[in-house]
Amino acid sequence: MKIVLAQQNYHIGNFEWNTQKMIDAIEKAKSENVDLIVFSELCVCAYPPRDFLEFSDFIHRCHQAVEEIKKHTSDIGIIIGCPSINPEVKGKDLFNSAYLLYENEIQDIVHKTLLPTYDVFDEYRYFEPSNTWHVVTFKGKKIALTICEDIWNVGNNPLYRICPMDELMQYHPDVMINISASPFDYTHVEDRKAIIKANIAKYKIPLIYCNTVGSQTEIVFDGGSMVFDKYQNLIAEANYFVEDTITVHLQEDGTFTESILKHAALIPDQELNPITYQSELNIDQIYQALVMGIKDYFQKMGFTKAILGSSGGIDSAVTLALACAALGNENVTAILMPSQYSSSHSVTDAEQLSLHLHNPKHTIAIEPIFNTFMQQLKPIFQDLPFSLAEENIQARSRGNVLMAIANKFGMILLNTTNKSECATGYGTLYGDMAGGIAVLGDVYKMQVYALANYINRNEEIIPKNIITKAPSAELRPNQKDSDSLPEYAILDAILYQYIERRQGPNEIIAQGFDKALVDRILKLVNNSEYKRNQFCPIIRVSSKAFGVGRRVPIVAKYLG
Amino acid sequence: MKIVLAQQNYHIGNFEWNTQKMIDAIEKAKSENVDLIVFSELCVCAYPPRDFLEFSDFIHRCHQAVEEIKKHTSDIGIIIGCPSINPEVKGKDLFNSAYLLYENEIQDIVHKTLLPTYDVFDEYRYFEPSNTWHVVTFKGKKIALTICEDIWNVGNNPLYRICPMDELMQYHPDVMINISASPFDYTHVEDRKAIIKANIAKYKIPLIYCNTVGSQTEIVFDGGSMVFDKYQNLIAEANYFVEDTITVHLQEDGTFTESILKHAALIPDQELNPITYQSELNIDQIYQALVMGIKDYFQKMGFTKAILGSSGGIDSAVTLALACAALGNENVTAILMPSQYSSSHSVTDAEQLSLHLHNPKHTIAIEPIFNTFMQQLKPIFQDLPFSLAEENIQARSRGNVLMAIANKFGMILLNTTNKSECATGYGTLYGDMAGGIAVLGDVYKMQVYALANYINRNEEIIPKNIITKAPSAELRPNQKDSDSLPEYAILDAILYQYIERRQGPNEIIAQGFDKALVDRILKLVNNSEYKRNQFCPIIRVSSKAFGVGRRVPIVAKYLG
Repeated sequence: MKIVLAQQNYHIGNFEWNTQKMIDAIEKAKSENVDLIVFSELCVCAYPPRDFLEFSDFIHRCHQAVEEIKKHTSDIGIIIGCPSINPEVKGKDLFNSAYLLYENEIQDIVHKTLLPTYDVFDEYRYFEPSNTWHVVTFKGKKIALTICEDIWNVGNNPLYRICPMDELMQYHPDVMINISASPFDYTHVEDRKAIIKANIAKYKIPLIYCNTVGSQTEIVFDGGSMVFDKYQNLIAEANYFVEDTITVHLQEDGTFTESILKHAALIPDQELNPITYQSELNIDQIYQALVMGIKDYFQKMGFTKAILGSSGGIDSAVTLALACAALGNENVTAILMPSQYSSSHSVTDAEQLSLHLHNPKHTIAIEPIFNTFMQQLKPIFQDLPFSLAEENIQARSRGNVLMAIANKFGMILLNTTNKSECATGYGTLYGDMAGGIAVLGDVYKMQVYALANYINRNEEIIPKNIITKAPSAELRPNQKDSDSLPEYAILDAILYQYIERRQGPNEIIAQGFDKALVDRILKLVNNSEYKRNQFCPIIRVSSKAFGVGRRVPIVAKYLG
Repeated sequence: MKIVLAQQNYHIGNFEWNTQKMIDAIEKAKSENVDLIVFSELCVCAYPPRDFLEFSDFIHRCHQAVEEIKKHTSDIGIIIGCPSINPEVKGKDLFNSAYLLYENEIQDIVHKTLLPTYDVFDEYRYFEPSNTWHVVTFKGKKIALTICEDIWNVGNNPLYRICPMDELMQYHPDVMINISASPFDYTHVEDRKAIIKANIAKYKIPLIYCNTVGSQTEIVFDGGSMVFDKYQNLIAEANYFVEDTITVHLQEDGTFTESILKHAALIPDQELNPITYQSELNIDQIYQALVMGIKDYFQKMGFTKAILGSSGGIDSAVTLALACAALGNENVTAILMPSQYSSSHSVTDAEQLSLHLHNPKHTIAIEPIFNTFMQQLKPIFQDLPFSLAEENIQARSRGNVLMAIANKFGMILLNTTNKSECATGYGTLYGDMAGGIAVLGDVYKMQVYALANYINRNEEIIPKNIITKAPSAELRPNQKDSDSLPEYAILDAILYQYIERRQGPNEIIAQGFDKALVDRILKLVNNSEYKRNQFCPIIRVSSKAFGVGRRVPIVAKYLG
């Protein structure tokens, strides 16, 4: 049986676009005498559709898309993901389903059993879990057809009481097919291979795994669709972070003859050590995820041009380099906005960076704007000393300048805040926290340095001085980040334990960190929740990013 | 049996504060020879604790609080809400539980069965549902003890497959006790009474219902704890929007002798018509909810002083009046920021308003600030015509002025955006969309007028001209809202169908609205998701507010 896995990049709610893309792949497969083509989870509407699922109209359009695709099934089997309506009165209205289409009919529908409801996932909000199981038969083959999370319990996943593949094995399937929308994080690629192998080790049949690719606002799907034979041999693996197809021949004995021998360009080979903070792990994957995150955000929002404030610091430099890679150098405008507190190297470093990147740049001094604000505020501020208020006026004047140019020329402002700043609230709301999407909001400062070195791996794109100088917000004379924050190596290590690993203060202190420092940092994190609540979406590359996947109360007094 | 219901206002994660409040109520009840005191759902940590539940440290502190409270149980039974640990390997780590404490022991623990996972609720993210049921025995009485949502299925709630009270009835309970954290919306008070009566009609035993009160960022809990006898007679009802206690005597025959005859001051008597848009329904409740929302936000964040931009328009006028009611007139500073496009009545109306409210006010002209921005942007903008960019510069200059004063004097900026603007994206990010909390973000424009009239019910607080003049952002000469938006009466009616009732375009058009207008409005709503994503928390008063309870993708193309 000749099978194609279509790893495609969909757009949420853009039915016409998604359907056409699938039909193109189907027609191509038909011309190559493919028996079965497999698409990914909820491909008709793209994942995650979130509360659009509460609209009957949206579900209706999903089903119209299925009707459209069905017209192309005269001589090919098609597996697609689509919500289906729960016919029972009780339980949620919808199932998260996989459809087998063939010979102009919906041949079979199966429903997802394990509904991820953690981190960025809200599936129990919308879907009823399946509580019956059967295999899908196609051309004499019995397929254990499952959806994403369904293969993530081989009996020892403590989140779930049911193991769907155990249920399906009583029908003696020949092959497992799993359609997924499984997002990237820099620990996840290895996890995914491990769980696939664990399934084959337990059930002793081949597994065909088709994942989606592309970025949906904050969530990056890396693809990595793959096929393993029943001996746990990796037969084929799609490229990561791009649309791709895999073609395989499933033999009677559960092995494959490949049509096209294919291995992914990117196969990670590092193990995550969950205890220590990882600054350089899989930095190439993080780079690719961020570039795709920017590219897809712009493409799916219908924009081409970006703008950002180029301060001469490392965060804006790395953001600029990533944006140029994603959008083309000519489409990323850097604005230099020195003030009376800016050091001379800030401007020269930022200029040098844009010379290397060949991207448009402008310089706008904010001192006259700041002075006018101060003059108008004088009757209220009187002779009160310079304080955070004055620092914030500068940051917000820059935000206003950037947004004004963005509005005037139809650009989108890229935010340059890193995860360490985002965690500690070291930033000004409506100032340097402004932007349409935060490129580095899930990248700790030490990882930003690793990214800078990765960007410079072949040639000096980011001027060395930007990498080596001490970080500073330059909002008052001789300011350094280290005036307010501990050294980033220590800060990041503590943040990693608190954010990614959900360790409490006692557990972190037990690892050898200073109690006063831990208490201070956790307090900074918890007391800046109100700022993050108004922050733009952050491209997610870790297992726990700020934003939709981390939901913390604002009016709270816990470790704060 | 003498029973006290303690309707209290807790603070998320503030264990010391919550525990002390409960102990004070327990000690008072003990002095009055009360047999049993009942608190609300998850009272030890306050509801909703969200992802704090993922921290072992947080759960440990919950259990420490139980230990503390247990010391006060020598001669009184206590029912409290607290997360408990799921001892089984499989399933989520926690249960949402009710504890019976008595004679220095945890006598019994029961778990919540129905876990709301919709709108603002994420309980399946954290909790395993109960799948066993038993009655709790106290002083010879068999209590069917349930938690909030558990009584919201009397057999016909399509969301759930299980009816916990059906399970409990096989043990022949004498009384139902339900501990809740059930939020307010302006349709919910009637729903709540109806479901309680439906339970009694079905099970024919009394029901004691203890709800929490107080606001947690966006979610307002209105209280309304109540006791019904087995004949569906309302025996006692706590006051709404305040801490309160109810004391009742449960008789052997399932009736009550009240210790203190008590009925709530506020008993709504209007039925919601779900089809038509309701502009004046329960406006007194909305008023109380908003005042409590402001008051609790400030109190729980540790702030006392508010600031807002007073434009002479109705939104800022109503916000100012609500804030003065919540925080005291002297604690709310109004900033008038006229520009060259402001009409003369804007300033005089705003001044008149603050004269009526006796709150501090200042005037700061933004024209010099705007002019300086324009001068600095001149090399980039050159001679391009005045556009949205220039409008936004004004709005953001005002935002910057307000935030500067707020930062300088430790005030919190109140946002004045209404739900109609929020829905259509009629506002400037980082400008008039700035603020710590949005007072009117869940109140449609027509409801804002109703609130203004309610505020003026005894005397003219909001000057009549503010209510009667045509709404305008005044960001360009002679601008009116109606230049960009349809009449608010029509706009609000369409928005209500789309937001609250999740009607699609065809369904709304079928109600008689113009197709082009419906398409245009739905497009405005869906295309401004990126703005709302960065908006501050909105005090929730409807059944569907923007924010945490409405989760819509940003990079999407559905009705956009």
